[in-house]
Amino acid sequence: MKLFKLLKEKAHEKVVIFGDKDLGLNAIIAIHDTTLGPALGGCRMWGYNESKNPLYAGMLDALKLSMAMTYKASAAGLDLGGGKAVIVKDPSTISEEEREKIFIRFGEFVESLNGKYITAEDVGTNVKDMANIMKSTKYVVGIPEEYGGSSDPSPVTAYGVFMGIKACLKEVFGTESLEGKIVAIEGVGNVGYNLAKYLYKEGAELIVSDIVEEKAERAAKEFNAKITKPGKIYEKKCHIFSPCALGGSLNSKTIPKLRCKIVAGAANNQLKNSKSDGERLAKKGILYAPDYVINAGGLINVSMEPAISGKPYDREKTLKKVENIYYRLLEIFKISKEKDIPTNVAADLMAEERIIRARKNS
Amino acid sequence: MKLFKLLKEKAHEKVVIFGDKDLGLNAIIAIHDTTLGPALGGCRMWGYNESKNPLYAGMLDALKLSMAMTYKASAAGLDLGGGKAVIVKDPSTISEEEREKIFIRFGEFVESLNGKYITAEDVGTNVKDMANIMKSTKYVVGIPEEYGGSSDPSPVTAYGVFMGIKACLKEVFGTESLEGKIVAIEGVGNVGYNLAKYLYKEGAELIVSDIVEEKAERAAKEFNAKITKPGKIYEKKCHIFSPCALGGSLNSKTIPKLRCKIVAGAANNQLKNSKSDGERLAKKGILYAPDYVINAGGLINVSMEPAISGKPYDREKTLKKVENIYYRLLEIFKISKEKDIPTNVAADLMAEERIIRARKNS
Repeated sequence: MKLFKLLKEKAHEKVVIFGDKDLGLNAIIAIHDTTLGPALGGCRMWGYNESKNPLYAGMLDALKLSMAMTYKASAAGLDLGGGKAVIVKDPSTISEEEREKIFIRFGEFVESLNGKYITAEDVGTNVKDMANIMKSTKYVVGIPEEYGGSSDPSPVTAYGVFMGIKACLKEVFGTESLEGKIVAIEGVGNVGYNLAKYLYKEGAELIVSDIVEEKAERAAKEFNAKITKPGKIYEKKCHIFSPCALGGSLNSKTIPKLRCKIVAGAANNQLKNSKSDGERLAKKGILYAPDYVINAGGLINVSMEPAISGKPYDREKTLKKVENIYYRLLEIFKISKEKDIPTNVAADLMAEERIIRARKNS
Repeated sequence: MKLFKLLKEKAHEKVVIFGDKDLGLNAIIAIHDTTLGPALGGCRMWGYNESKNPLYAGMLDALKLSMAMTYKASAAGLDLGGGKAVIVKDPSTISEEEREKIFIRFGEFVESLNGKYITAEDVGTNVKDMANIMKSTKYVVGIPEEYGGSSDPSPVTAYGVFMGIKACLKEVFGTESLEGKIVAIEGVGNVGYNLAKYLYKEGAELIVSDIVEEKAERAAKEFNAKITKPGKIYEKKCHIFSPCALGGSLNSKTIPKLRCKIVAGAANNQLKNSKSDGERLAKKGILYAPDYVINAGGLINVSMEPAISGKPYDREKTLKKVENIYYRLLEIFKISKEKDIPTNVAADLMAEERIIRARKNS
């Protein structure tokens, strides 16, 4: 009964379970908190076949992820709340035609919430799905560029991480210069690659790993990066370790191996256990840039689309706004020192306090 | 995981769990089906303290009860769907001031559904609560008379049961005359009392029981009724047994005792087990008037309030509409004979078929 405990304790504002008999469909939209603005969060499509009770598992996911979005949007300084949608359906079991119908119907679900929830791409969904959602609601971002969307968010996310790394350098070394600094990047996919480009341009030395060899080789070729095996990157001596691959790479096994001063990367859910692993990094004297703060570039990016900003998307203005990540992190480091708490706890605190303040003033 | 199985199989259109941190509140609104029209259904307030997981229990209740409302509205021939709301809160733990706040907030929840759900009184809520709900939404019926509400629905429900009894008499005896017919009424509270009045006026002989002695005595005095002990009424020889008290009074223990030709009363959920007890009555050659069809007068009554009908409430027109129960029951008896199925199953079938037809035509 974890799910009901969560619902009771966290008091999500509105959790909706939609059903459609004809489509054999269940979808969940969880709106955690809209104190700061409409709830933004991606729409997952997932079968949860690994679970005995897919609908339960999907709902639990929506509850947790929507809550995380509240913190992310608040910490990024956006006037947005946290939401998340889950379509409980194994994408491999449906035709293209059914898929189109499902997303048009999902758009109707979104529309029925009167703009309190704005949807976006997520695990298992793509930009074409967003275009279908657009047929029935305007409350969708991450739409195709020809409709006023923002296109590929990876360079923007990478830019945010880059600015975040500068904040960390400033904090640890008193200067944000990357000249001669060694950065070990775990994962050089879309975001990691773009991050490497920024870092290399400003004089950093790079060590990279990727489970896809070609990706590592591309970085070696273009940015003169040294390649290491994926499992070996943790123990490389460097100034900055930058997790840009899957979540959970900071854990009780990897953290003891780290030989860096800073952890700052683009991956989601970097800490396997947010409490103990956050403390573990702090005790080791490593400055950790909380993942959801430093990787908020993608979120800031879509928040600049017309559905939210009310204005045409502008890449330059967006990058300008992404630079705020620098200042948000410095603020978090300050709170962390003042209260003697790990930076990830300080980030949560900052996010919560902004909401509490807004609630008082409303 | 009963709840999630139900959700998946019955595909309720929309189930919303609302949370309010400040009020420490969780409420559920379940909209089962709106094919025929907006979902109407009462709002319960209940602590579910008997359950380990009150929120789960409340949600399960909302799912089941909203589905029952879909059948009830459809069988009554109303252009309404089925819904139900549950406020998971023990009324005995809150002050009058808190209670007012809760219902005003609940009205906002209702309002956010854009009229797809219309609320009403139910277990644990009263007409004053409805007046508070009115402060934040127009989608509420059973409101005080001074605001255009329908006031006490008991005489209307009783009139519907009275018309239903006439349909049963017509079916069994070929005439709907009550002259000389013996009716045993279990429970002479608000509805039972009004029913007794109608029956007495048309020449019926009454046997009554009530756990509150004064109520039975009032019926004895005013309608010349014979009084029997509550547990003894089942075995009284009569033409019609009329359950007008708590649910579940037709079960494996009471049905064998019955010495009547017709069961037709106002109580909800008269059959303890709808499958086996429905069959049990049919096998005994007793004509059963399905509870949710014969007691739909209250529902028809609120459907004539402005929030649904768009017109001022009119008691005469309402009673006219309630007379339809007579014809709905004759239709059910016909289906029951044609298909050789118990009348309660025939009622479900009739309700389902109306929805299927409407879906095809839409």
